[in-house]
Amino acid sequence: MPLFIGVDIGGTKVLATAVSSAGRVLRTARRETPGRRVEASLVEDALTAAVQEIAGTRRVGAIGIAAAGFVDAQGERVRFAPHLPWRDEGVRARLAERWSAPVVLDNDANCAARAELTYGAVGSAQDAIVVTMGTGIGGAVVLDGSVHRGYNGMAGEFGHMQVVAGGHPCECGGSGCWEQYSSGNALVRFARSRIGQQPTALRDLCDGDPDRLTGPMVTEAASAGDDVALQAFASVGDWLGVGLANLVAAFDPEIVVIGGGVSAAGDLLLEPARRAMRESLVGAEHRTVPPVVRAALGPEAGAIGAADLARQTFRSAGTRARARRRAARGTARHR
Amino acid sequence: MPLFIGVDIGGTKVLATAVSSAGRVLRTARRETPGRRVEASLVEDALTAAVQEIAGTRRVGAIGIAAAGFVDAQGERVRFAPHLPWRDEGVRARLAERWSAPVVLDNDANCAARAELTYGAVGSAQDAIVVTMGTGIGGAVVLDGSVHRGYNGMAGEFGHMQVVAGGHPCECGGSGCWEQYSSGNALVRFARSRIGQQPTALRDLCDGDPDRLTGPMVTEAASAGDDVALQAFASVGDWLGVGLANLVAAFDPEIVVIGGGVSAAGDLLLEPARRAMRESLVGAEHRTVPPVVRAALGPEAGAIGAADLARQTFRSAGTRARARRRAARGTARHR
Repeated sequence: MPLFIGVDIGGTKVLATAVSSAGRVLRTARRETPGRRVEASLVEDALTAAVQEIAGTRRVGAIGIAAAGFVDAQGERVRFAPHLPWRDEGVRARLAERWSAPVVLDNDANCAARAELTYGAVGSAQDAIVVTMGTGIGGAVVLDGSVHRGYNGMAGEFGHMQVVAGGHPCECGGSGCWEQYSSGNALVRFARSRIGQQPTALRDLCDGDPDRLTGPMVTEAASAGDDVALQAFASVGDWLGVGLANLVAAFDPEIVVIGGGVSAAGDLLLEPARRAMRESLVGAEHRTVPPVVRAALGPEAGAIGAADLARQTFRSAGTRARARRRAARGTARHR
Repeated sequence: MPLFIGVDIGGTKVLATAVSSAGRVLRTARRETPGRRVEASLVEDALTAAVQEIAGTRRVGAIGIAAAGFVDAQGERVRFAPHLPWRDEGVRARLAERWSAPVVLDNDANCAARAELTYGAVGSAQDAIVVTMGTGIGGAVVLDGSVHRGYNGMAGEFGHMQVVAGGHPCECGGSGCWEQYSSGNALVRFARSRIGQQPTALRDLCDGDPDRLTGPMVTEAASAGDDVALQAFASVGDWLGVGLANLVAAFDPEIVVIGGGVSAAGDLLLEPARRAMRESLVGAEHRTVPPVVRAALGPEAGAIGAADLARQTFRSAGTRARARRRAARGTARHR
């Protein structure tokens, strides 16, 4: 059996996985992402090293890449990636040639949603919203049982929906974007602003230096009942719910799945989100309000989804090729 | 040839139409909606009178109802309609029995989008956002060439997406809803607030009484170059663009279609909307920004779409029935 490999490439790290057809991660390899101000070939070297470590001497069926950036509708080019050096480059073909293997390419949040759809929390639902809360907010739309990529391949860019007129400036150039209020960055910003104002265990966790505070520290403190950390989750969860209400009003999905690092806090995040979503949602009393659940697959979701995309794409290609060969043999017999 | 009839029922009027297979309106009949605080049967009497006026003695193929309210995913029940007396009632079956004819039921904005998709401004696009700007904002999502209804039949409720935290209170119970800033009501509210502050032709148009000001008066004054009326369109158009940017970030459609009464102002509304949408849209420089165009079908769009839904539903039912009869004959022959 050939290996199907999924690789997740973000601004800081490369995670390569071999994934079974049941979605089980068989092996993983990690590399650091060389950065955004380097030659693109250096990033591709890191991808190659991780893929080689996974593949060894095994035959590779296909490789899926989950990239933190805008991938075009054809899955050929990375149009733009804020934390990577690719600028409208034909990454898929270049890697396929370099690796002499079939390669497929999609956005990382789409891949994570695909993993949740195939193996995870989407379950039997046909329509879902998947929100990935990491440093910022990523997202994907599942419609009729598959990930909806949109006309430019850019559907699901929920993080930059404006929720506060004239609000916090955002790196995207806009202001008041959802991820400025509900994300890992927002969580840390909220908590930092309270250190020094209220007694909090966070002060010790960051050794007295608010600049060293991280999201996982806030999660740890909140789990232990720290007031400031709980307030931070209440704020970020509340904003999560407000944005979800907007998405539910627009898409009317059957389920909402929250993934990404911040979702590790579970109900500390999701309870305020559910409450705020229900309060903000139009016609909540006249509809089935969708459940808001935590993603099932954790930080490997993007890589697992990329491997699944590779497997399904290659398997269908294989099926089509076999069908063509059968048809050709049939034609030959009937001649 | 049997008649296919579409009926649009809103808070103030009933519009019934007979529509050709090419989308041409053959006949229309109008009635007043009896109100929201009356027996539902009175509303159904008004619908019946309008349908009878259209049908006369002609054979009716099927009747489509476009209702201003939440229609369930099965197209059976009106779950809630703020301006009509229906409260979770099985309207479709009741009317079908009363009229002894096939009846289909959908939300009015979905029907209008269906009309724009089949005969109007959506053209050859497969994915579109259709926004209906009347008193408030209605909407619909076109995906893969058909109207996406959502898990509860409530997709496309764009008007109640929150765009201003702690903003204007809304009749829906929320606050800061999009339609509080971009709609016929918002247009009139803006213009009223300026009468008495600046010289404006609006003062004469409303006979000096701001309470008598209407949306069409603002459109008329803006078309004649009145500053206050133009400012009102600039504000409402700007907010339209901000909300559209959110929808485009989420859905990534090929085209955006703006219908409803306010869209009669054309570029007075759409130019500021296009500008604001482009400014707010994430990654605008890395994507094809969708064109924002005016709906093609005007105030009859809902009724035309309802008639088309009736025709397509009935035609497929007829096709299936014929196929079954053919299959039955085939089976009989082979026995």
